[in-house]
Amino acid sequence: MPKNFADRLLDAIDEKQNPSCVGLDPVVSDIPSTLKKRLLDEYKGRMESGNKWKVLFEATGEAIFRFNQGIIDASSEIVPVFKPNMAFHQQYGPEGVHAFWRTVDYIRQKGALVIADVKLEDIGKTASFYARGFLGAVELIDGTMASSFNVDAVTLSPYIGSDSVGEFVKVCAEHGKGGFVLDKTSNPSSGELQDLKLDDRHGGRLLYEHTALLIEQWSAALKGERGYASLGAVVGANYPEQAVRCREIMPNAVILVPAYGAQGGTGKDTIPNFNEDGYGAIVNNSSMLIFAYKFEPYRSRFGEEKFAEAARESALAMREDVISAMRSSGKIPSKW
Amino acid sequence: MPKNFADRLLDAIDEKQNPSCVGLDPVVSDIPSTLKKRLLDEYKGRMESGNKWKVLFEATGEAIFRFNQGIIDASSEIVPVFKPNMAFHQQYGPEGVHAFWRTVDYIRQKGALVIADVKLEDIGKTASFYARGFLGAVELIDGTMASSFNVDAVTLSPYIGSDSVGEFVKVCAEHGKGGFVLDKTSNPSSGELQDLKLDDRHGGRLLYEHTALLIEQWSAALKGERGYASLGAVVGANYPEQAVRCREIMPNAVILVPAYGAQGGTGKDTIPNFNEDGYGAIVNNSSMLIFAYKFEPYRSRFGEEKFAEAARESALAMREDVISAMRSSGKIPSKW
Repeated sequence: MPKNFADRLLDAIDEKQNPSCVGLDPVVSDIPSTLKKRLLDEYKGRMESGNKWKVLFEATGEAIFRFNQGIIDASSEIVPVFKPNMAFHQQYGPEGVHAFWRTVDYIRQKGALVIADVKLEDIGKTASFYARGFLGAVELIDGTMASSFNVDAVTLSPYIGSDSVGEFVKVCAEHGKGGFVLDKTSNPSSGELQDLKLDDRHGGRLLYEHTALLIEQWSAALKGERGYASLGAVVGANYPEQAVRCREIMPNAVILVPAYGAQGGTGKDTIPNFNEDGYGAIVNNSSMLIFAYKFEPYRSRFGEEKFAEAARESALAMREDVISAMRSSGKIPSKW
Repeated sequence: MPKNFADRLLDAIDEKQNPSCVGLDPVVSDIPSTLKKRLLDEYKGRMESGNKWKVLFEATGEAIFRFNQGIIDASSEIVPVFKPNMAFHQQYGPEGVHAFWRTVDYIRQKGALVIADVKLEDIGKTASFYARGFLGAVELIDGTMASSFNVDAVTLSPYIGSDSVGEFVKVCAEHGKGGFVLDKTSNPSSGELQDLKLDDRHGGRLLYEHTALLIEQWSAALKGERGYASLGAVVGANYPEQAVRCREIMPNAVILVPAYGAQGGTGKDTIPNFNEDGYGAIVNNSSMLIFAYKFEPYRSRFGEEKFAEAARESALAMREDVISAMRSSGKIPSKW
């Protein structure tokens, strides 16, 4: 029986005394130009002799992988979990997905956990193939089964309901993996659906509260030994009041908290997502951390050549910020 | 200014006098064993001399592509649009996405349209990268822009709201592309969220009706010359009453109708999705069509070697069924 994902995640958070997550959102125009220039030189010969467009896509995938690798090298001692987002990779087709695949593999080599940010949903059988591809085992042409992306958890969307999420829960139970279902997302328009008020038959709840109830039900099959479940929720750091409600409805969920950094959230804003025991949340930072070299106070101290060191400093500052907010609120693991 | 997607879709439907769509859901265990055996022979040498697992993934991707190719060859004269689903491809990582990429390219070569069934959503900037990758142009390592997957339309999920869908709408407007937003999906549990009753402030509507209103608003920027919009909705053939409501709320939407065939829908069930003018719906058939060789009446007439001919017969039968239901209801284009 593989170890439960929530247990593995809490152990990893304890080991690094850090409930934060690095979001790998590699925007090619923001990748240091020195790194891109070196690669263009490396690929120059192939570009001149072969299919230029194909080689350019390959070189772009390589730039993304090397950038991710730099960030992972610089921060995997500090952070327990990385969250590569598929959009930034898949936009380049198979070459981009190859960069995603190698990134996942590299994170695992460095001993950190991987959440694939893919926001998947589909009906029954189709969802099961996504689940097997990212979390379980796929059937190859000769009938053998093999693990494929083999990440630790994925993000999921709830609109299709149990027929989608349930397929992921089955694979998670079998393989010790996890999921985070979109509940109250960090974007300004998230209320268009998520804050809709339901009628009295549904207790006058808002839609995100109803989604939270469903997540609580779906997660029942995935409880770990440390009291948390391997199916959690996504709740933006910029909606602290909603986080309080989510925490009440889903006491055993691990909440993935985006919108720290770029979207304005601070360590203090993330506190409602934690339980009194100091667990139950993982705070994500993407652009402001991985592209720290572009922003003060890092820009003046690190040139673009030192983008990875800037990211490391930013990861350390984030840990300090989140932990000091946890300490002030009293929500900090007793053994830290 | 590129031609509007809805106009292109209606023209293609007219050209083939067929409002149906072939869903490419290639399940490896259902691909004819003769095709797989031939490929295993072809790849045998490489498997023995190289990295066996890597070669097995490549061979699996090749099997998927060749299967899709057989279906496309047999049916692209009959059907105007194909809908490859990412799940069945992406489960095999970069090799699977490569098969998806080649499939898209092959469909375009055959002069049919492509809807990528990806059910995408993400916040703002991230959604824009998905939109560019599937529908627009991506920035390569040297700063040049290139089209990537270059499909005609994608499926989308609405939970995140305008911040997600709006990014796709922008790219659709610029590149003459389209989208279909999940509204009332065909699965049994779709009501868990989609049938929730909202309170009186929202007119006591059900959630899927509210989603339909949002789709109607989002689609305003994408109206074509033939009266339809390039942003449509997904409404399952097995929910005909809900289809009537969706049709009322979104008079100018093209509705993508799954659940014909495998999920029990017939031509008659799809009629509420059409407008009186005989347009406004595209009916999808996946497994029952592409794997027709496994089911009667095709199984006895075609062996697995003739899986493509079985699919062709099934596509012809589906056109006949849908068109005769359209004719009986009076909802058929006047010029057919």
